[in-house]
Amino acid sequence: LKISKCCVATQSSKSDTLFPEKVDFPSRHIGPRDQDIVTMLDLLGYKSLDQLTNEAVPKQIQLSRLMEIDEPISEYDLIERVRKIAEKNQIWRSYIGMGYHNCCIPHTIMRNMFENPGWTTQYTPYQPEVAQGRLESLLNYQTMVSDLTGLDVANASLLDEGTAAAEALSLCHRNNKRTKFVVSERLHPQTLGVVQTRLDALGLEVIVLPDVRQADFAQRDISAVLLQCPDTRGLVYDYSGLAAAAQEHGTMVVVATDLLALALLRPPAECGAALAVGTSQRLGVPLGYGGPHAGFFAAEHPLVRMMPGRMVGVTRDAAGRDAYRLALQTREQHIRRDKATSNICTAQALLANMSAMYAVYHGPQGLRDIATRVHNATLVLDHGIRKRGHKQSNDVYFDTLHIVPVSEHDASAIKARAQEKMINLRYFEDGAVGVALDETTSMQDVNDLLWIFDCESVDEVIKTGDVKSRSVLQGPFRRTSPYLTHPVFNMHHSETRIVRYMKRLENKDISLVHSMIPLGSCTMKLNSTTEMMPCSFKHFTEIHPFAPLDQCQGYHTLFDELAKDLCAITGYDRVSFQPNSGAQGEYAGLRTIKRYHEFRGDAGRNICLIPVSAHGTNPASAHMAGMRVCAIRVTPSGDIDMEHLKDMVEEHSEKLSCLMLTYPSTFGVFEARAADVCALVHAHGGQVYLDGANMNAQVGLCRPGDYGSDVSHLNLHKTFCIPHGGGGPGMGPIGVKAHLAPFLPSHPVVNPLTDLGDAAHSFGSVSSAPFGSSGILPISWAYIKMMGPKGLKRATQVAILNANYMSRRLDGHYKTLYKGESGLVAHEFIIDVRDLKKTANIEPGDIAKRLMDFGFHAPTISWPVAGTLMIEPTESEDLQELDRFCDALITIRKEIKDIEDGVIDKRLNPVKMAPHTQEEVITEDWNRPYTREQAAFPAPFVKGESKIWPTVSRIDDMYGDKHLVCTCPPVIDDF
Amino acid sequence: LKISKCCVATQSSKSDTLFPEKVDFPSRHIGPRDQDIVTMLDLLGYKSLDQLTNEAVPKQIQLSRLMEIDEPISEYDLIERVRKIAEKNQIWRSYIGMGYHNCCIPHTIMRNMFENPGWTTQYTPYQPEVAQGRLESLLNYQTMVSDLTGLDVANASLLDEGTAAAEALSLCHRNNKRTKFVVSERLHPQTLGVVQTRLDALGLEVIVLPDVRQADFAQRDISAVLLQCPDTRGLVYDYSGLAAAAQEHGTMVVVATDLLALALLRPPAECGAALAVGTSQRLGVPLGYGGPHAGFFAAEHPLVRMMPGRMVGVTRDAAGRDAYRLALQTREQHIRRDKATSNICTAQALLANMSAMYAVYHGPQGLRDIATRVHNATLVLDHGIRKRGHKQSNDVYFDTLHIVPVSEHDASAIKARAQEKMINLRYFEDGAVGVALDETTSMQDVNDLLWIFDCESVDEVIKTGDVKSRSVLQGPFRRTSPYLTHPVFNMHHSETRIVRYMKRLENKDISLVHSMIPLGSCTMKLNSTTEMMPCSFKHFTEIHPFAPLDQCQGYHTLFDELAKDLCAITGYDRVSFQPNSGAQGEYAGLRTIKRYHEFRGDAGRNICLIPVSAHGTNPASAHMAGMRVCAIRVTPSGDIDMEHLKDMVEEHSEKLSCLMLTYPSTFGVFEARAADVCALVHAHGGQVYLDGANMNAQVGLCRPGDYGSDVSHLNLHKTFCIPHGGGGPGMGPIGVKAHLAPFLPSHPVVNPLTDLGDAAHSFGSVSSAPFGSSGILPISWAYIKMMGPKGLKRATQVAILNANYMSRRLDGHYKTLYKGESGLVAHEFIIDVRDLKKTANIEPGDIAKRLMDFGFHAPTISWPVAGTLMIEPTESEDLQELDRFCDALITIRKEIKDIEDGVIDKRLNPVKMAPHTQEEVITEDWNRPYTREQAAFPAPFVKGESKIWPTVSRIDDMYGDKHLVCTCPPVIDDF
Ligand SMILES: Cc1ncc(COP(=O)(O)O)c(C=O)c1O
Ligand SMILES: Cc1ncc(COP(=O)(O)O)c(C=O)c1O
Ligand SMILES: O=C([O-])O
Repeated sequence: LKISKCCVATQSSKSDTLFPEKVDFPSRHIGPRDQDIVTMLDLLGYKSLDQLTNEAVPKQIQLSRLMEIDEPISEYDLIERVRKIAEKNQIWRSYIGMGYHNCCIPHTIMRNMFENPGWTTQYTPYQPEVAQGRLESLLNYQTMVSDLTGLDVANASLLDEGTAAAEALSLCHRNNKRTKFVVSERLHPQTLGVVQTRLDALGLEVIVLPDVRQADFAQRDISAVLLQCPDTRGLVYDYSGLAAAAQEHGTMVVVATDLLALALLRPPAECGAALAVGTSQRLGVPLGYGGPHAGFFAAEHPLVRMMPGRMVGVTRDAAGRDAYRLALQTREQHIRRDKATSNICTAQALLANMSAMYAVYHGPQGLRDIATRVHNATLVLDHGIRKRGHKQSNDVYFDTLHIVPVSEHDASAIKARAQEKMINLRYFEDGAVGVALDETTSMQDVNDLLWIFDCESVDEVIKTGDVKSRSVLQGPFRRTSPYLTHPVFNMHHSETRIVRYMKRLENKDISLVHSMIPLGSCTMKLNSTTEMMPCSFKHFTEIHPFAPLDQCQGYHTLFDELAKDLCAITGYDRVSFQPNSGAQGEYAGLRTIKRYHEFRGDAGRNICLIPVSAHGTNPASAHMAGMRVCAIRVTPSGDIDMEHLKDMVEEHSEKLSCLMLTYPSTFGVFEARAADVCALVHAHGGQVYLDGANMNAQVGLCRPGDYGSDVSHLNLHKTFCIPHGGGGPGMGPIGVKAHLAPFLPSHPVVNPLTDLGDAAHSFGSVSSAPFGSSGILPISWAYIKMMGPKGLKRATQVAILNANYMSRRLDGHYKTLYKGESGLVAHEFIIDVRDLKKTANIEPGDIAKRLMDFGFHAPTISWPVAGTLMIEPTESEDLQELDRFCDALITIRKEIKDIEDGVIDKRLNPVKMAPHTQEEVITEDWNRPYTREQAAFPAPFVKGESKIWPTVSRIDDMYGDKHLVCTCPPVIDDF
Repeated sequence: LKISKCCVATQSSKSDTLFPEKVDFPSRHIGPRDQDIVTMLDLLGYKSLDQLTNEAVPKQIQLSRLMEIDEPISEYDLIERVRKIAEKNQIWRSYIGMGYHNCCIPHTIMRNMFENPGWTTQYTPYQPEVAQGRLESLLNYQTMVSDLTGLDVANASLLDEGTAAAEALSLCHRNNKRTKFVVSERLHPQTLGVVQTRLDALGLEVIVLPDVRQADFAQRDISAVLLQCPDTRGLVYDYSGLAAAAQEHGTMVVVATDLLALALLRPPAECGAALAVGTSQRLGVPLGYGGPHAGFFAAEHPLVRMMPGRMVGVTRDAAGRDAYRLALQTREQHIRRDKATSNICTAQALLANMSAMYAVYHGPQGLRDIATRVHNATLVLDHGIRKRGHKQSNDVYFDTLHIVPVSEHDASAIKARAQEKMINLRYFEDGAVGVALDETTSMQDVNDLLWIFDCESVDEVIKTGDVKSRSVLQGPFRRTSPYLTHPVFNMHHSETRIVRYMKRLENKDISLVHSMIPLGSCTMKLNSTTEMMPCSFKHFTEIHPFAPLDQCQGYHTLFDELAKDLCAITGYDRVSFQPNSGAQGEYAGLRTIKRYHEFRGDAGRNICLIPVSAHGTNPASAHMAGMRVCAIRVTPSGDIDMEHLKDMVEEHSEKLSCLMLTYPSTFGVFEARAADVCALVHAHGGQVYLDGANMNAQVGLCRPGDYGSDVSHLNLHKTFCIPHGGGGPGMGPIGVKAHLAPFLPSHPVVNPLTDLGDAAHSFGSVSSAPFGSSGILPISWAYIKMMGPKGLKRATQVAILNANYMSRRLDGHYKTLYKGESGLVAHEFIIDVRDLKKTANIEPGDIAKRLMDFGFHAPTISWPVAGTLMIEPTESEDLQELDRFCDALITIRKEIKDIEDGVIDKRLNPVKMAPHTQEEVITEDWNRPYTREQAAFPAPFVKGESKIWPTVSRIDDMYGDKHLVCTCPPVIDDF
């Protein structure tokens, strides 16, 4: 192994000033040391980073100054500062409900999952052999959702309850092709908002009814009915009659529900629902001012192949053992593009895992105990309130009451008393008051609530009445079916046990704590501890998204500062934080454009041009936004085919809505003519949507807003350091030029556009929470504050350097498919291995699996070009790690050469048989034409003392998709 | 494998009351579920836990009521409560210095080491094959200390600076047998206090001189001179002349010093010191109101075999590769008992690891930058202060100034201004003021300090003078020798890199996150997250130990509550928190007894009776306390030989100081006659010291204070849940009956006995910090608060149940050596494998190594009885884990049977060749008479997906001790 000497070099001395800089975060974030950078530039023939990036980035679009961002602060000052900001948020007790409930997050799960880079820094488990840990946990999540709802299958999370509901109705539409939907007015308003926004764009009709039981299905034109139970006011009611009627007429029943309530209540499946949706936030995930939380989605088995989102399934590995992998990927946007079931890509894996672990830790009895406790507290409160003479509207309820105060205590008097106790309630416009209790509610809390409503104390109430008479456990709504019966939910109830379980799963997966994960288009960079720390501050975690604004000044300070910085970075004028993933950002951006055209009387503009090289989410989002997608060809060198583009904009000039452009292109190249492309689209009245996934090649060097783009999403979970969490959370805020600002997302509860007053003409809302996954925004905020304008620019430069260095080192072994006019790649590059299929029967997937034997996660496989690997090292990886990865690839190329040369069998060789598990190599029956050592220790740097083992052999995707099992398999074995 | 069905059982329902208990910490802490407990009791023939422990614990000593401890609170309420308590501490900026300096703790080290159970829950690395991770890190620590001091060898930490200094002088005494010591008055007062206390007991004379340069060594009767540089006032001075003079006359030079200062200053070795000591706190460890921090100890090579404490050395494994292990253990108390170099056992491994990682992360240049920054800030401050006309006494200094204010600004005026800014300074009795700057000091802080002294601002000061003229970098004190030159300190400077390095080391070691660690006498139980969380609260971490008491009310509230609870648990009347390990507790307790006798005019009482079965620390501590140790025999059944005891107390009646007793005995048995033993000792005027290491068998069942003991230490790092940290930190507070209270430890800076007024007659101080390692006391406090009296008692009962269950399951395979009269063991038990030496040439160590192949850490080996294994499961391990461990032992017994039967070779067999590394089993050249599978997967529950691998083969201790290398070995390889 070639050892780069540079790894022993230190940063140059800073002690020549009186107070040498304490700020050194950029040197912590950026991997290569100064001397390494010299070495690497040398190899490439450049004198400086500036010289390199001046060549790489087209002159016309270069930013010629530093960004207007504050000078950097140190990691220690940052924590002080963010603590002060956080403390501007006021922690009141919130009994607002509406889908967001405080809960007791088991500390051991918080620390060992949420605060543990071993759980937060993986990507989506597309390489299942090194992802069995979180695949198992996500399967636990699916099993939990499926058990509690009673439905056959569930997916591994969606973005939130609102989008889950919208996705459910889209599924119904795809299923029965009908275009009308009956939707209950008693949904949470934000769910209703998202559903209306989403269906509207698809030309589907939403009929909102105060009481869905009045709906008439006899015309057989209603695709589905969406209701909520318990409803937004807390009422639990019997919808099985309605469901039967609906079913009779081919209308599907979708129920938005509450998983904790289902621990006591008859589940949707037993009431006739085909689909159930909601959020699992209250199962062990902090409020975080609205997110990130996992939305859940469950369905009857016949619908499984139409489900949106990722789904874990059980399959077999090459050794015939059970193994987990993502099932039915053919449904997803990265395969089906605008025909996909949904545009969802990044979901909420980490939060789903937290909720799953919460269920594993509590088990069925624990969950039932918690639910009972919450319900009983509500019974006591209800009893006291009725006794006092207030009207309580819900006959049957789980945890939420709807109170019409007696006249001498109007809502404002009650509100005044609530404020005295620093308690938030839900105040309806008609003077009614909502109270939703939760897992954290103590006897004292109930006493305070009773006091607010001028009632007797808990003790009095209990003494004087049979409060249990209204318990759902005594009536027909009582749940009788079991749940969480699988052993995994019944064996990890001590802390010792759950810690070991979490650790065992963690150690099965490759994450950034082990080695680089050079996934092209994913920007797997450092997620630093300092950035992560504020996400655990209680002044951030314990804020309800609908708390009055004056309690949330910390969050809004952070939003304002971050928005300002993101504008300075991108050249846009305003940012919306509502979209909680990149794909959501695309959708929100396209809807903003659409609304802009409509508002200008240009409603006919609905053509969206998308290069064939675009990420699958682009066409999927455009489709969902109600646009017609026209594909633009790319040239053999990877650039947009300008001739074709010209033809298309001319052909569609009247109807042109926009172009979606990824820059640098998904081929990893800075096209010289980005500005020309934008100008051309504008000339035909179109808008430009620039997919910000590749901002890591641009920050500090060029700005989309400067060279002609009108709107972009920013994957904060790529360029701006939010960890990927094994498939989410993410954040996809959008930046827009000023002319689009009035059309950005609004929200039915907390309007983010109030400052625009009448000028606002929003298209609607895309997420349940007004500011998306606010709880993780401190990460990106902190990154920018600690890097400063120079640090951010340098990070981009080193990201470009790293990619070019690797491309050069692989030269002669692998061909880099596309380069810019300068002969340079951007921050990532594609190596072409299509030939190897012919010469050695080797496909990219084989190389991916073989890399696992070296302890590496594969690059992005066969995207955007089939038969290739796309490598994105990021600036956080240092020279030694880049060299190790290159060495691994070069070694594999030599192994392939042996196949080509007939030195080794075409099937029985270390590449084709990869990855190798311990069981395979530690066997007496080894009968392969290569050695065990070659299988397990293929390079000098792969050693027993630090080897990361795949825990299963190569996975058989076909088998799994044919024999679909998406809940925990029966246990024949220990654990 | 036998699968215990019970693991799928849940705790019984609690929902039959209106508000079912939210408090369930006991069920998280205790491993076995209710149903498991029934199963286990059944096997043993008992109906209930009470019935079991009524049998196990002698009737006479049983506590017949619950302890007077508060009812338990939930994990969530606890955090709320402790936060409130913490916030009673006020965080002022402290420039007091005196060996305690604020510093910037790299957040990634805090989170990934200090807050990571993968780093905190290991034991001392006595099983090196599964401890290479922390052994490497401790070796880094040794290398760092050795580099910075310039001395040849360093150990892996001592408890604090004060004990390190005392140990150094004891070493000198052992080395040259002289009995007089010259000690500088300019040591930190707490160092002086500990040194005086310790030497006093050994009958050694301490001559304190204001200026040690005046000392006369010509009589050749001075063993050593102990000086501090920079001294406690901050003065840096040239002691090389003194050192030369001392050496000439056979006097050794010991220097207490500051590692950060040594980044700029000529190191002690170059000035003639043979030994250097101090604390590494300021290298990345929080203040924590005095601890835990690592004391360091470095020496010239010829002294290495006399060094106290643990030392990591490089040796070879069976495969001939470099490997780490604890070197020269023959020096230690567990081998040498009262002849040991020291009584130290638990040290400060975790804190040493944090400091080592701090050095790895910053590297030489980073450390130099930090030191320069601190020094330059001090230069500016000094310049401003002198300019104003104040006198500053230190001509040369690193970071600390000694200021004699001009008359119009007397100390009280300055103090008033300092208080306005919430800044603590050091106020000398003579009106001088000390200021010690640190890594956290910003330009603004210096401005505030200048303001306090009525000086110009930083900018003015810099403008008007050559502040650098006094820099140590310009003078003769400047360091010219390099340090931290090893690659490990020069390659992990990005966060990505250090995170991977920490993770790679973590994953080499078995800790409680993997499997049970049934080390007899060590109580490796759950260290729960909730208990650990407060240790990171800044209101606990950022408090200087000598801050005024009114700023430390949070800590004192906690001390008071914990002391009260510990008294309720033990039956004692007062607790001292000063001792920061069990061995320190022993020493403090014995000194308390000694002082008690002296105060009563009974100074002649100096015989300490200790059963031969006692832990090595007991005789070592007694020796250090200046007592004469007399061994008491034990009977073949493991009890104290009452006849021998009677003879001895009678023989020594006049001179009897005390008896040291471990209860239950180190043989794991509740002796029936504990109370009789105590009575007998009392009858002869002696006191009883009960070693509290085995409190985990007693809490809630019996109390030492009730059945006759006068004083005990409590290993809070055993029974009370402080994690072992891989060899520390720990806490060994002592409880005493009222008559001993006046004689407890005092402290020269913060007296813990003030409430006793004139009644106090302390013997002196044992630790640098007045309340020991205060920063980890929240752990034990939280444990007690969350368990409550019933939970604590139940924990003890289950600990006893678990031990008895395992003993029973192993019956027929291994013989349990000792049982009580009831036929029961206590919370641990000894299995006898002495026969196997004859029948199969198998020793306990072989079984220990073979257990590693099963993924288990060995039990305690050959202690207290050679040729045995002592197993302590603790209450936190559940039935399934106990069964797995028993299965492993039973499988090994079968393998041994094959040896006995001649079925397999006596040398080439899986037990003798254990443990097996990946390299060994993944080789083509396997030529052993057993299979690779048997080697690596010896039981069905050992699988590739979760296997913990030893990273080296069996270690050759002899080789290492012969070829001693105690700093990082040269790197021939990558990483
Ligand atoms: C180019 C591009 N656009 C959009 C997306 C979608 O982002 P998200 O996964 O956050 O929805 C991705 C995700 O990898 C991407 O690479
Ligand atoms: C019986 C006994 N006494 C004393 C000690 C010493 O305690 P420490 O290691 O905290 O110094 C131990 C440590 O294991 C012990 O087992
Ligand atoms: O660590 C012990 O020596 O028990």
